[in-house]
Amino acid sequence: MRDVAIIGVGDTRFGEIWDKSFREIGIEAGLKALEDANVGAEQIDALYVGNMSAGKFIDQEHVSALVADYAGLANQHPATFRLEGGGAGGGLALASAFMAVASGLWDVVVAGGAEKMTDVGEEEANRILSSTADQEWETVFGATHAALHAMVARRHMYDFGTTREQLAAVAVKNHRNGAKNPNAQYQRELTLEAVLEAPVVADPLGVLDCAPLSDGAAVVVLCPMDMARKFNDTPVRIVGLGVASDTIALHDRRDITTMDSTVVAGKRALHMAKVGTDEIQLAEVHDNYTISEILAIEDLRFVEKGKGGPATEEGVTELDGDIAVNPSGGLKARGQPVGATGIAQAVEVVRQLRGEADARQVDGAEVGLTHVQGGTGATAVVHVFRREN
Amino acid sequence: MRDVAIIGVGDTRFGEIWDKSFREIGIEAGLKALEDANVGAEQIDALYVGNMSAGKFIDQEHVSALVADYAGLANQHPATFRLEGGGAGGGLALASAFMAVASGLWDVVVAGGAEKMTDVGEEEANRILSSTADQEWETVFGATHAALHAMVARRHMYDFGTTREQLAAVAVKNHRNGAKNPNAQYQRELTLEAVLEAPVVADPLGVLDCAPLSDGAAVVVLCPMDMARKFNDTPVRIVGLGVASDTIALHDRRDITTMDSTVVAGKRALHMAKVGTDEIQLAEVHDNYTISEILAIEDLRFVEKGKGGPATEEGVTELDGDIAVNPSGGLKARGQPVGATGIAQAVEVVRQLRGEADARQVDGAEVGLTHVQGGTGATAVVHVFRREN
Repeated sequence: MRDVAIIGVGDTRFGEIWDKSFREIGIEAGLKALEDANVGAEQIDALYVGNMSAGKFIDQEHVSALVADYAGLANQHPATFRLEGGGAGGGLALASAFMAVASGLWDVVVAGGAEKMTDVGEEEANRILSSTADQEWETVFGATHAALHAMVARRHMYDFGTTREQLAAVAVKNHRNGAKNPNAQYQRELTLEAVLEAPVVADPLGVLDCAPLSDGAAVVVLCPMDMARKFNDTPVRIVGLGVASDTIALHDRRDITTMDSTVVAGKRALHMAKVGTDEIQLAEVHDNYTISEILAIEDLRFVEKGKGGPATEEGVTELDGDIAVNPSGGLKARGQPVGATGIAQAVEVVRQLRGEADARQVDGAEVGLTHVQGGTGATAVVHVFRREN
Repeated sequence: MRDVAIIGVGDTRFGEIWDKSFREIGIEAGLKALEDANVGAEQIDALYVGNMSAGKFIDQEHVSALVADYAGLANQHPATFRLEGGGAGGGLALASAFMAVASGLWDVVVAGGAEKMTDVGEEEANRILSSTADQEWETVFGATHAALHAMVARRHMYDFGTTREQLAAVAVKNHRNGAKNPNAQYQRELTLEAVLEAPVVADPLGVLDCAPLSDGAAVVVLCPMDMARKFNDTPVRIVGLGVASDTIALHDRRDITTMDSTVVAGKRALHMAKVGTDEIQLAEVHDNYTISEILAIEDLRFVEKGKGGPATEEGVTELDGDIAVNPSGGLKARGQPVGATGIAQAVEVVRQLRGEADARQVDGAEVGLTHVQGGTGATAVVHVFRREN
């Protein structure tokens, strides 16, 4: 298996991008990544696109060939793939691109993610998001992702004494980080009071506990490690990956306060990377709801089970804490174009490991991790990255 | 790169399967494939699902985790991926599963494809199928796949003198083969007259020039070649694969009577396989319309450009011809559950190479090929297979 490096990254600002189409935001991020990588478009062998539901959001399936075409690549006929796994699609695209390079089949491979969600309106967008839960046993009875995550939050509060304020502390931290990210959807800080007083979506989660609907795209460029320095001097190596699934319906889990898919994907990725949890200096994790980040940092073993709330409140996961979690602002403040998430996380980790994260830079970052999940944790993808320069 | 074998295959009968759900047909095919492979479910490392539009057909995205869950695998948390590329999704799933095994990351990997299309009614199903064409420049103006393929057919008739009867001969041949396939949707022969007199869908294509809407699933089990004989004695090796894209809109092509994606994917696959076109004894190709098969056999270089019509009429592609094309009955008679197509083709080739194809057996088959395309040829995937026993 060949070693694989990320040699270029690019993203759009996330938000309500009403003046650009799906294909335009995909290309915007892609061109930035190619320029960053010093790679010419003619060198691209294959393109992987993470996308959740372009079929429903913009009435367009087959978006992998679409993006390659509009990027001007049609004449060289690159291999193109679309990966979907709810919120984990970007992570699956990155894992697939990794395998393509690692296998030796292709050399220069682009992995991107894009979603255009805001054109359909809020109610329809939330209905579409629900189609990653179990249609026959959850969605058809009216379950939404917010409702399912609210049940998780309520049980976590009951089992571990997690407080409403601790949930809110996740949003406050991630907005503080997002305020330092020029590509974040929300570049403003939030007070704890604002989060606590926001309208309730599904008790105990208020609207400021929920990541927004977003448009956006993110792209990374991969090649074999031994080819990376031909392109630039700042390669970041993908040292581990783990992919794991679980029951699609939340009610079938042995315990709804632990995401077993995250636990297993995390173990697999760290085992492959030969990296201990204590070596991870920063992590981008799936904070589609504030409770999700608390579960993620527990299930990835950054903190003891049940201690995610107090740890957040005490600053353990701040930029200057023991482990910086969601330095980009996370889904909560950077934004949540679903299929782009896993790639956007990789973009942030690469910037951090290169020391290019400006006001939100984690000092001396050498090892970072990304974590995405699909549905209410039916799919989880974890990658571990190490700087090589 | 490790050599990769297919050690088990399974499929459902294709057709209007109104008494079973998406998840049920996926599992039915999967269990048959595992039994055929002598593989226990607990040995599965990863699951790849080709699917075009479950989001629209059954309001369910995230079908990879769904199928793994309902197959009883949730407790072992396999890695799960959904691949989409219009009609090429099954081929992309197979290519991705190949890379996962070839890279050394995973050993026992399942690649399946499934689609449940008939519950939404014919008009809506055709509308959904159109979402693999270019939404902004084709679909929004009313272009359907039948209309686009009709233009291709008309131009092919003009450029090469292809006749209406030659188009119809594809349907007659594929129904003759389908009549010998117990899992085909249509197990009855058609006369040339019946095809010629069928109601017109888009001139010159009649309803019997078009593959049907179908429900169905197909599954193959992959492992490293050097592990294959632990499971059974009839491994089939995947010796080559090629994936290629093209402009998504038909009007942007340099020539609409040649599918460049097929030309390029075919060359890439044969180059990797170190196999000459003349060594291919049988091929399953993408005959969603009769004209599509004529293009495919030309663009894969089985016959000279422009000679696909006469060759079909003369019996070159019959079961006992120079090269047996669509021995299963193809999309036309076996059926067309879109995301399952690429996998179903592999199932047929494996059965042929094992000598298990009964009444439709191609004598002495040792090397076979599969070809799927997405949209009107914006994606093409070609695999080459060789028997190893």
